[in-house]
Amino acid sequence: MSDAVSPLAPKSYPDAPAIDGVRFATASAGIKYKNRTDVLLMLFDDGAEVAGVFTRSKCPSAPVDWCRDNLASGKARALLVNSGNANAFTGKKGREAVTLSADIVARAVGCKPSEIYLASTGVIGEPLPAEKFAGVVDGMAADAASGPWLDAARAIMTTDTFPKVATRSVGLGDTTVTLNGIAKGAGMIAPDMATMLSFLFTDASIAAPVLQALLGEATPGSFNSITVDSDTSTSDTLLFFATGKAGGAPVTRVDDPRLGEFREALADLTRELSHWIVKDGEGARKFVEITVSGAESDASAKRIALSIANSPLVKTAIAGEDANWGRVVMAVGKAGEPADRDRLAIWFGDIRVAVDGERDPDYSEEAASAAMREEEILLKVDLGLGAGKATVWTCDLTKDYVAINGDYRS
Amino acid sequence: MSDAVSPLAPKSYPDAPAIDGVRFATASAGIKYKNRTDVLLMLFDDGAEVAGVFTRSKCPSAPVDWCRDNLASGKARALLVNSGNANAFTGKKGREAVTLSADIVARAVGCKPSEIYLASTGVIGEPLPAEKFAGVVDGMAADAASGPWLDAARAIMTTDTFPKVATRSVGLGDTTVTLNGIAKGAGMIAPDMATMLSFLFTDASIAAPVLQALLGEATPGSFNSITVDSDTSTSDTLLFFATGKAGGAPVTRVDDPRLGEFREALADLTRELSHWIVKDGEGARKFVEITVSGAESDASAKRIALSIANSPLVKTAIAGEDANWGRVVMAVGKAGEPADRDRLAIWFGDIRVAVDGERDPDYSEEAASAAMREEEILLKVDLGLGAGKATVWTCDLTKDYVAINGDYRS
Repeated sequence: MSDAVSPLAPKSYPDAPAIDGVRFATASAGIKYKNRTDVLLMLFDDGAEVAGVFTRSKCPSAPVDWCRDNLASGKARALLVNSGNANAFTGKKGREAVTLSADIVARAVGCKPSEIYLASTGVIGEPLPAEKFAGVVDGMAADAASGPWLDAARAIMTTDTFPKVATRSVGLGDTTVTLNGIAKGAGMIAPDMATMLSFLFTDASIAAPVLQALLGEATPGSFNSITVDSDTSTSDTLLFFATGKAGGAPVTRVDDPRLGEFREALADLTRELSHWIVKDGEGARKFVEITVSGAESDASAKRIALSIANSPLVKTAIAGEDANWGRVVMAVGKAGEPADRDRLAIWFGDIRVAVDGERDPDYSEEAASAAMREEEILLKVDLGLGAGKATVWTCDLTKDYVAINGDYRS
Repeated sequence: MSDAVSPLAPKSYPDAPAIDGVRFATASAGIKYKNRTDVLLMLFDDGAEVAGVFTRSKCPSAPVDWCRDNLASGKARALLVNSGNANAFTGKKGREAVTLSADIVARAVGCKPSEIYLASTGVIGEPLPAEKFAGVVDGMAADAASGPWLDAARAIMTTDTFPKVATRSVGLGDTTVTLNGIAKGAGMIAPDMATMLSFLFTDASIAAPVLQALLGEATPGSFNSITVDSDTSTSDTLLFFATGKAGGAPVTRVDDPRLGEFREALADLTRELSHWIVKDGEGARKFVEITVSGAESDASAKRIALSIANSPLVKTAIAGEDANWGRVVMAVGKAGEPADRDRLAIWFGDIRVAVDGERDPDYSEEAASAAMREEEILLKVDLGLGAGKATVWTCDLTKDYVAINGDYRS
């Protein structure tokens, strides 16, 4: 296991601007890691509208249960996130830990515990020593500032090799609003959701039910279309906070025409963050975009695309820069979705390697191999059956993935 | 990629006896491999009853289509198997190759092509040079003998590191009959079926419909309960041939009371062969038995067991000898089946590591770690909901799996 940063990491990080109504601070509570920050406290001094989407795991973590319960109000005053311990499968102790965490923050902030949102990421099954938050939260609340956002992204990393920040500035009616997002996630990544934490913040004035609807629109093509290893976390959490400080009449309806540009920016920003998660996939050396077209439906196309994206044999072939399209056929076949072997066509990049159920007559091993040497691999499959289409993103499966995950807990 | 034999290989091989009515020979046709046998010809001089079970892939190989078409007759005169090329996703050329293969064998044997069964394993998408069989089949038919069975198993290996042979001798009414089986498979192994070829032979007198029913009983608890990498082959083939040479009144009904011992032997032999496939799983260092109990139904238990068995994070933890039961919780949660986090209990070997939704109060890291150092890992999950139960088998996920599969085709 190396400490090297993913070769797919960004060359530079965006300088995300302050968001009016949002202050934050990071600290080292010593939950698990040494010599790094592991707690993030985000404050919304005048409150924020909030919406959320969570893991579909049947065994969700205690913080996920906590957030789900509180979301009904649509109001938030603070968000506390820790890395190093997921507080998942911790039973009664886990419920006590979220209650204690919320109490500590509520006291420091001066609000009700139900206005506190919590997220935890890290090892499953270890009791979370929430009392450690007491030693840092008061100081964090006092020192909280409007930046730098990269510090916020760093405090929530686990096996991530780089922090994930994205920002957009867009018009909303006559107002210009800012949208910032941070995310973490590198392994245990599969829809729905990707195993990850992501938090979005805006100064736009948008009511909680509309925020929730916007999240629901943005996730299918972003966080729910990525996979690193097909493993779904107990802790996936995506929260969206809107302070309303940018002014303008509040958006209270999802069909408000002023939302056009904002909607696009949100789709774009969530897609960017989700791609950074894949590019930081444990051991990843290649970013892979898989598009399936010609399926009987979009849902069928997505299932086939995910079958390809989750196939260990496809992923190891990509790691080996091997244009092994036979394994793509295998993965199409195992998806159980309608497919006609003799109509299949497959491309790596611009190179069509297979058509009409067999190797392309013009197939060039050299050209296909050259496509596989790229850092970003485009894999396209056309089923020739209908108009269903989907795109998903994944990474390759390397020895480093095994090294990272064979030696994580100890 | 090393040439080392799996550490889980058998210490010795059974001396499978001759089966009256079965002769076979192996040869090197140079399909792909150098300096090894790659063709197996099995002959049933006086014919055999035959039954078969095949891959559920929507993109099956040409030989799978061929066998399915011929099985209706229930009669076989010969079986030709090659390794090195799967003749899958080969379009019209693939269909021509199976026709040519069957013609070559039928001519050598003196029977109809429809009495010839074919199986191919190896690379997908490359045209199979079936004309190469013409150079070896006549010699094989002339030289065919009743042993040694280990040679037959060796000729059908691909990335297998050891040949797989099993044998049983049992009573059938007043007659003693023999049951021999060979198998190959190491990667692209997932139910249903495991990605594999397996051929069973007996001198018992059993009609094809009964053979088919017996196969249907034996596969759920054997070949359909194993997974190496969740990837399903286009070529999975299990064929069962009965020559009837042992004598006795033919078995023509599946409820024939004489079948009792035979049925058990078949279940036992297929389980043994399926376990050898897992023990030769690409890069495997550990054999893992996963039992899920307390599920709402057997089918639900099996889906949860397979979710655990196919989780890259569980498999890498086992490779790292890490008693990471949190990942088992994750895999239970992602299966989408009914589960109550707060009733879950998990064991590694005899060590209960989690109970009532949290770490066992008596948990000993040392004891759990000791269990993980064993070559065979027993992982047990009890859901506490109902009486549903299932057991599946898998192996760990090691760097060698990645090495083997990142560099197979080239």
